[in-house]
Amino acid sequence: MENNVARQLPDELMEQLNYQPFKTVEYGNREIQRVAPKVRASVGPSKVVDSLETLIHENLQDGMTISFHHHFREGDYVFNQVMRIIIDAGYKDLALAPSSLTNVMNDIVVEAIEKGTVTNITSSGMRGTLGEAVSHGALANPVVFRSHGNRARAIESGEIKIDIAFLGVPNADEMGNANGMDGETAFGSLGYALMDAQYADKVVLITDNLKPYPNTPASIKQTQVDYVVKVDAVGNPDKIGSGATRFTKDPKELKIAKTVNEVITNSSYFKDGFSFQTGSGGAALAVTRFLRQSMLDNQIKASFALGGITKPTIDLLDEGLVEKVMDVQDFDRGAADSMHLNKNQQEIDASWYADPANKGAMVDKLDVVILSALEIDTKYNVNVMSGSDGVIRGAIGGHQDAATAKLTIISAPLVRGRIATIVPDVTTVVTPGDSIDVLVTEVGIAINPKRQDLLNELSNIPGVPVYTIEELQAMAEHKVGTPTPLEFTDRVVAMVEYRDGTIIDVINEVKD
Amino acid sequence: MENNVARQLPDELMEQLNYQPFKTVEYGNREIQRVAPKVRASVGPSKVVDSLETLIHENLQDGMTISFHHHFREGDYVFNQVMRIIIDAGYKDLALAPSSLTNVMNDIVVEAIEKGTVTNITSSGMRGTLGEAVSHGALANPVVFRSHGNRARAIESGEIKIDIAFLGVPNADEMGNANGMDGETAFGSLGYALMDAQYADKVVLITDNLKPYPNTPASIKQTQVDYVVKVDAVGNPDKIGSGATRFTKDPKELKIAKTVNEVITNSSYFKDGFSFQTGSGGAALAVTRFLRQSMLDNQIKASFALGGITKPTIDLLDEGLVEKVMDVQDFDRGAADSMHLNKNQQEIDASWYADPANKGAMVDKLDVVILSALEIDTKYNVNVMSGSDGVIRGAIGGHQDAATAKLTIISAPLVRGRIATIVPDVTTVVTPGDSIDVLVTEVGIAINPKRQDLLNELSNIPGVPVYTIEELQAMAEHKVGTPTPLEFTDRVVAMVEYRDGTIIDVINEVKD
Repeated sequence: MENNVARQLPDELMEQLNYQPFKTVEYGNREIQRVAPKVRASVGPSKVVDSLETLIHENLQDGMTISFHHHFREGDYVFNQVMRIIIDAGYKDLALAPSSLTNVMNDIVVEAIEKGTVTNITSSGMRGTLGEAVSHGALANPVVFRSHGNRARAIESGEIKIDIAFLGVPNADEMGNANGMDGETAFGSLGYALMDAQYADKVVLITDNLKPYPNTPASIKQTQVDYVVKVDAVGNPDKIGSGATRFTKDPKELKIAKTVNEVITNSSYFKDGFSFQTGSGGAALAVTRFLRQSMLDNQIKASFALGGITKPTIDLLDEGLVEKVMDVQDFDRGAADSMHLNKNQQEIDASWYADPANKGAMVDKLDVVILSALEIDTKYNVNVMSGSDGVIRGAIGGHQDAATAKLTIISAPLVRGRIATIVPDVTTVVTPGDSIDVLVTEVGIAINPKRQDLLNELSNIPGVPVYTIEELQAMAEHKVGTPTPLEFTDRVVAMVEYRDGTIIDVINEVKD
Repeated sequence: MENNVARQLPDELMEQLNYQPFKTVEYGNREIQRVAPKVRASVGPSKVVDSLETLIHENLQDGMTISFHHHFREGDYVFNQVMRIIIDAGYKDLALAPSSLTNVMNDIVVEAIEKGTVTNITSSGMRGTLGEAVSHGALANPVVFRSHGNRARAIESGEIKIDIAFLGVPNADEMGNANGMDGETAFGSLGYALMDAQYADKVVLITDNLKPYPNTPASIKQTQVDYVVKVDAVGNPDKIGSGATRFTKDPKELKIAKTVNEVITNSSYFKDGFSFQTGSGGAALAVTRFLRQSMLDNQIKASFALGGITKPTIDLLDEGLVEKVMDVQDFDRGAADSMHLNKNQQEIDASWYADPANKGAMVDKLDVVILSALEIDTKYNVNVMSGSDGVIRGAIGGHQDAATAKLTIISAPLVRGRIATIVPDVTTVVTPGDSIDVLVTEVGIAINPKRQDLLNELSNIPGVPVYTIEELQAMAEHKVGTPTPLEFTDRVVAMVEYRDGTIIDVINEVKD
């Protein structure tokens, strides 16, 4: 069957996995019966257990679904500690359902796959050795990639049923009251993990920092937690955040960032009370810097900034240029450290952030978002998942979710090295072109033809030429030539869900 | 059938309503499958609707269960506004499931009963004209009385299924982000209402104070809210709290309060890091004052204070004598106003406060609680529900829940006017004697014989004679004589649940 972004989907697999093809970016007023966990009532004055091994042996069974969060990012010690025990104990056929997988988790997941410990994975993304292994067919069943908002939706609807959540935290008391904002390994918002804490049948907190009871503020509450395990270390503080934020000095990135800012400030959305999400990365930080100056110059304040938060965004909050920061995840230490100091930095869970199937997520109110792309094609479809060699090396993150903003800007260079970013057809459709409004490159911008209003607003910005996306694609092709088409086998190694749970694309095994 | 506090329960009704008799105060490690609401996904930029009438007409159907909270206490305007519309529209057979019913709600509930609008009620309690009406058989079906923790349990397990929750709030934005701590009609913690917000199929916020989006801190979140209705006024600020707190000057109450403090400070629980709940009322405030001095004198600090919070408890927090205040409800303006100022005053929901069927409630960690009694009998069973005339005029509140503390003290005078407080058998058993440890009266104390440890600890306090409870009962009877036995009909007008959902007693229709 073919879906509404013209992707061929394998009928048999779609039926077997009970999937519908992607149809529309509009979720509509659907009614959803939520699910709820099984809860074992707790007695006794403490949930602290000495041995992670014993806990796992007493609670884990073959075939179960286990989850983790990725808030410790590349500084995570928890995932490897837990998975080591699970692999060594010889468990089989587990489903892994983390909020995402960072590079520090790759090798042990590959090992778990090779040993049959893990046969199913759902994640926001994967990279490195793990992406390579999966792309070469290592996993028994197709990976399911879901955006952060979609993961929340799938958990609430029961499509992801977590048997045991292993959640690392920088602090916890003996009953399981914990937050992400205090302690040596603080990472700020617990946004993604709050879904697991609420919906998993069993919740295990893992911490290196036991606090006096009751530990507050409690983002995760004792009412949700079954066990607290004390370990020597949950993470490496130096690797949790990206450290001190540095603005790009790359002239091309600066040009793109400046143009993104021109697009924003020349649009009708740039007015008092507007809202935005910029994300991380050098270019995004540069956008925040340009935007700050424009807000000062025009005496405009934002009602809220959303998404993965960085220190430059917190600076806007402290400066009074942003009223509220709605924080599902912190990308650096500065943002993490600010959380317990500034009450206008509100922790939000992944559902509140981006779930299409709740009573209104933050992304529904978002005016402007700047997103990246590995590839964008002439239908404005965006790929943030597979590389130019067809190998999985990305993550959906909040891409599909935030793209529902009123003004969705993709910031991308025409080419990266010898690889075109703007292509006739993306390798993998992750975010449908229907939700993309403007592409900003170093040579100029392209505006989705469905947005005639933006064509009018943005056509006369000095120094910002407007092209059709076909023209930009031709320029990119002119620079790097036409690549040899990728070759894949018939085997599907990953299903890419749209945020509503339909299939927007599949990823096939790469041919060596 | 007879339950474990020797109450005769009507077999037929018990079976018809699918009830088990009360057996034990121990809840144990039972496993509970929670329920979850049906959620209609929201689209559109605002949930604000102009007309409460239209909203009710479009959403309410005969036979549905509707809920309210009682955080506005005697200053509540919301309940009457909503019920007026519902009664006038001619709805029938509704079930009313508020967190409790305050006196300002009495008359309109009586009217709703008389007109057939309401045929089922579950509440923490009721008083005044409503208690009279129900006790005289006005309601079609028996009222079900539940403690605050039990209401949370019943909502989580589906025993209370709320179709529409009408929740008044002192502030909200257009999407439904709201808290109880800001605004003219601030009442502090939204603790009881947080259950409704999480579990009701439809959630309607009613406010007189629309705030810019996004309104934070958001105790109730936009993800939970279907409609926001703006009305002229949600409450009378002067009647929400009990106003400035005044200590009792009544010598008998002061004597009791002083003795309560002696019991606490002479027990082994009085040590650094202990926890307590004192509640409201002149005597309770006096206890807090005495306790403060003892804490200063002995250089002892408490880890947390729990429950309905008053200004004197907040003063202990500000003074550093209490590390954390765990706040499900605020009894006065001072406590309410402090919430957004002091981050160690943690808002908790009713489940976290007192639910026996979750992974650990605050009451499970409580060392000392002081509770009141309308009657206490020689088995230490306590009645806080029915008066000496058999008429309903009380509320369970958190009584059953907090009585699970390690040291549960009932503070009560021997007699009130011509009515004995200590009796051979309480009119209605609300809290089983098994969870009561010490009775403090103005003449001395009685210690539950099951607590030999306390008999040892508390037998030699100067000026605090220890009696058997039979001796105290005899003293009371000596003062006021033996009352004529109450007369009831066979008709059951109310079921009193224990916190685990079993039946601890029933209340029969009074004979005129």
